Amino acid sequence: MDSPLVDELPTPGVLVDYDALLANICWAQNVAEQHGLALRPHVKTHKSARIGQMQIEAGAVGITTSKPAETLRFIDAGFKSVTLAYPIVAQSKLLALLASARDHVVELRLIADSAVGMDAIISAAKQTSYSPGVFLKIDVGLHRVGVSAYSDQMLQLARKICAETSVRFSGLLSHAGHAYGASGADEVRAIAAQEAQLLRHACERLHSHGIEVREVSVGATPTVLASDDYDGITEIRPGNYVFMDRTPLRLGLVSIDRIALSVIGTVVSANDRYLIVDAGSKVLSSDAGAHGTGHLDGFGLAFPSDHYPAGCEPLIVEKLSEEHGFVRRDALNLKIGSKVRIIPNHSCAVVNLADELIVIRDTMVETWEVTARGAVQ
Amino acid sequence: MDSPLVDELPTPGVLVDYDALLANICWAQNVAEQHGLALRPHVKTHKSARIGQMQIEAGAVGITTSKPAETLRFIDAGFKSVTLAYPIVAQSKLLALLASARDHVVELRLIADSAVGMDAIISAAKQTSYSPGVFLKIDVGLHRVGVSAYSDQMLQLARKICAETSVRFSGLLSHAGHAYGASGADEVRAIAAQEAQLLRHACERLHSHGIEVREVSVGATPTVLASDDYDGITEIRPGNYVFMDRTPLRLGLVSIDRIALSVIGTVVSANDRYLIVDAGSKVLSSDAGAHGTGHLDGFGLAFPSDHYPAGCEPLIVEKLSEEHGFVRRDALNLKIGSKVRIIPNHSCAVVNLADELIVIRDTMVETWEVTARGAVQ
Repeated sequence: MDSPLVDELPTPGVLVDYDALLANICWAQNVAEQHGLALRPHVKTHKSARIGQMQIEAGAVGITTSKPAETLRFIDAGFKSVTLAYPIVAQSKLLALLASARDHVVELRLIADSAVGMDAIISAAKQTSYSPGVFLKIDVGLHRVGVSAYSDQMLQLARKICAETSVRFSGLLSHAGHAYGASGADEVRAIAAQEAQLLRHACERLHSHGIEVREVSVGATPTVLASDDYDGITEIRPGNYVFMDRTPLRLGLVSIDRIALSVIGTVVSANDRYLIVDAGSKVLSSDAGAHGTGHLDGFGLAFPSDHYPAGCEPLIVEKLSEEHGFVRRDALNLKIGSKVRIIPNHSCAVVNLADELIVIRDTMVETWEVTARGAVQ
Repeated sequence: MDSPLVDELPTPGVLVDYDALLANICWAQNVAEQHGLALRPHVKTHKSARIGQMQIEAGAVGITTSKPAETLRFIDAGFKSVTLAYPIVAQSKLLALLASARDHVVELRLIADSAVGMDAIISAAKQTSYSPGVFLKIDVGLHRVGVSAYSDQMLQLARKICAETSVRFSGLLSHAGHAYGASGADEVRAIAAQEAQLLRHACERLHSHGIEVREVSVGATPTVLASDDYDGITEIRPGNYVFMDRTPLRLGLVSIDRIALSVIGTVVSANDRYLIVDAGSKVLSSDAGAHGTGHLDGFGLAFPSDHYPAGCEPLIVEKLSEEHGFVRRDALNLKIGSKVRIIPNHSCAVVNLADELIVIRDTMVETWEVTARGAVQ
C-alpha cells in the first residue's frame, strides 16, 4: 500500500485498498453463512456496481438501496434482487420503480410504515401489473422511520398489506442505526439483542393475529460486527462494512487495518498550529459519524502517507473549510508538498462526494466509477 | 414562489429563487461600485457558469475559484479573468492551469504563501511561457493559509516574487473566514476593520522596503455585508452572497427574504418527536456553517412549502441521516407526502452535493447545470 504510485496520484482522492475491501466482503458473507442468514448488503455506502458485483459473487442474494434513483441505476447495471429500504410515498417514483423492476425481471422489495405509503405502493402495483414485496418497517430505537412493535398501528398495517393481492407481505425490517452512537462494543451488542427481541415480539403478536412473518431483516455494520443473537432473524443488510471508517474503530469493533477507504491529500500550507491539507469538507464531508453521532474528535485521522495506516500516531483533522483540512500538527513536521492519508469519520459520506474511487491492488491502480453518483431522488 | 409547480417537483431538490439571486448579485456589484472596488466573486458557491455569467454581466471584472479543476472548467466556459485563491503546490496542476490560461488568453492570478509554492509557480511559468499574477496570501486571523503581516517571511516572499521576471507580483490577498464564526454584526465589522488595518500595515512595510503593492484583495460574504472600512482595499471576492444561508441570517446581516437557495423535501414518515423528510446529509450536508463554525442549532430551518419563507415559525432540522432529515415537529402536524422548504446552514456545501439547480422565476422552472460538479482536484 505504500507503493510509489500512490504518492503520484493527484490529490485529493478517495483510495480503496482492494485486499481490505475483499476481506470485508468475505467477512460479512461468512457471518451470514455461519448464522444461516441471507445477506443483502446496502450499496449506498459504495454506490458502485463493481463492488456490488463483488458482493453478489461472494454470495449475497441481493442488494439494498436507499433511493429510487439509486435503485434504477443498480437495476440498469444488472442487479436482480433489490430491497429499497426507504419509505417511498411519491406515486411517480413508485411507478418508475415498479415498471423498471417488471421490465428487467427484478425482484423488488419496498418498505412502508404508513397507510399513505402502502396505498401509494398498492396503486402503483395495480397500474404497472408488478407485485413488489413490502416489508413493514419496525422502529427499534433510532426513532426515525418505522412503527412500534407494541403498537396497534403495526397490526393494522400488517393486516392492510396482507389483505391486498397486488403486493406481497415480505415481513419485518429494521435498522438499529442508534448503534453508531453507542459507547462501545458491549452497548452495540445490547442494542442488537434488543432489536432481535423486539422483532421476535412483533412476530409473535402478528402470529397470534393469524399473520405469518416470512422474513425478518436487520442491518447496520456495528450490530453485525458485535451481535451474537440472530434468533428469529433471517437476513442482514450491513453497508458500511465494505470500507469501515473511524466509527467502528471508535467502537472497538475493528482494528485499523480493516479500514479499506482513505482520502489522500497534500500538505499545501503550514502554520504553527496546523498542517493545511487539500482535503476539506467537499471531500471528507463534515459528518461526525453515521446519523450525526458526534463522539469523534475532529473529522479524520491523518497519517504521513509513508506511515499509513499504522506506522505512527495519527494526527487529528481538527477543522474543515470547504477545500482545506486543518491537521493538528502536534510534534510532527511535514514539508509542504508531502502526502497524507486520512481515515474519515464516515466512509459513506466520502463516497457520496466522489466521482470515482481509486482502487489499489498490489502495485496496480484502477479507477472505478461511482455508479449512483448524485442519485439523490 | 409558492407556485403550484414547485410542489410538483421531485424531491429532494435544490431550488434557487431567481429574483433573490439577481438582487444579491446586484447588491454586491453596488457595494463594489460605491467603494471604488473591483468585484471578483468566488464561484465555488454556485459552481455554475450561468450564474458566473450573470455576475460578469452585472459588472464583475472576473471570478475567483478554489481548485485547479474548477478553474479549468470555468476557463473552458469562457471566463477571461480568474483568480485561483488556493495555494497550488503540485507542478502538474500548475502546468495544466498555465497552459490552459495561455491557450484561452485568460488572465490567471494565483496565490502563494511559501517558497515551495512560489518555486512551483515560477517553474511552471517558465515551462509554459505564460506569466501569471501571483498574490501573497496574508493570514488575517483564520489561521489557515497565509503569512503574518508582521513577519520577516512576508518580506522575503514578496522579494522573491518581485525578483522573478517570469511572474507578476499582483499584491496581497486575504480571507477573513473567521468572520463566519462571529457572534453578530458588530464583531464581523470589527474583523473587517482589523483585516483592512493588517493589510495597510503590510503595504506600508513592503513600501518601506521598496516594494509597491498594486492590488489588495479581501473577501468573505459576512465582512462585505458588514464592513464600513475599505481604506487601502482594491478588490472584494465574496462568494456565498449569491445565495446566502442561515449563517448571515444568524449574524443579523440579512433578512430571510434575501436567501435565494432552499432545499425542497417531502415528509416521508412521522413519529411523536419528528417529521422525517427525504433530505438528509447527502443533500443538506452536515456543515454547521462555513469553516465548521458551530453556532447553529441543527442543520436547517424547515417551513411547510406553502408558508415559505416567512409565513410561520420555522422548524429545526435537528438531526440528519444520509437520506433523512429529522425535523423537530413542535406543535405542527404535516401529513405524509407534504412538501417542506429548508434553508440550509451552508449553501456552498449544498450546491457541492447537487447535479443541478432548479431555478424558479415567476411561474417558470429551469434546470441549470452545476458546471464544476465534482471538480475537487
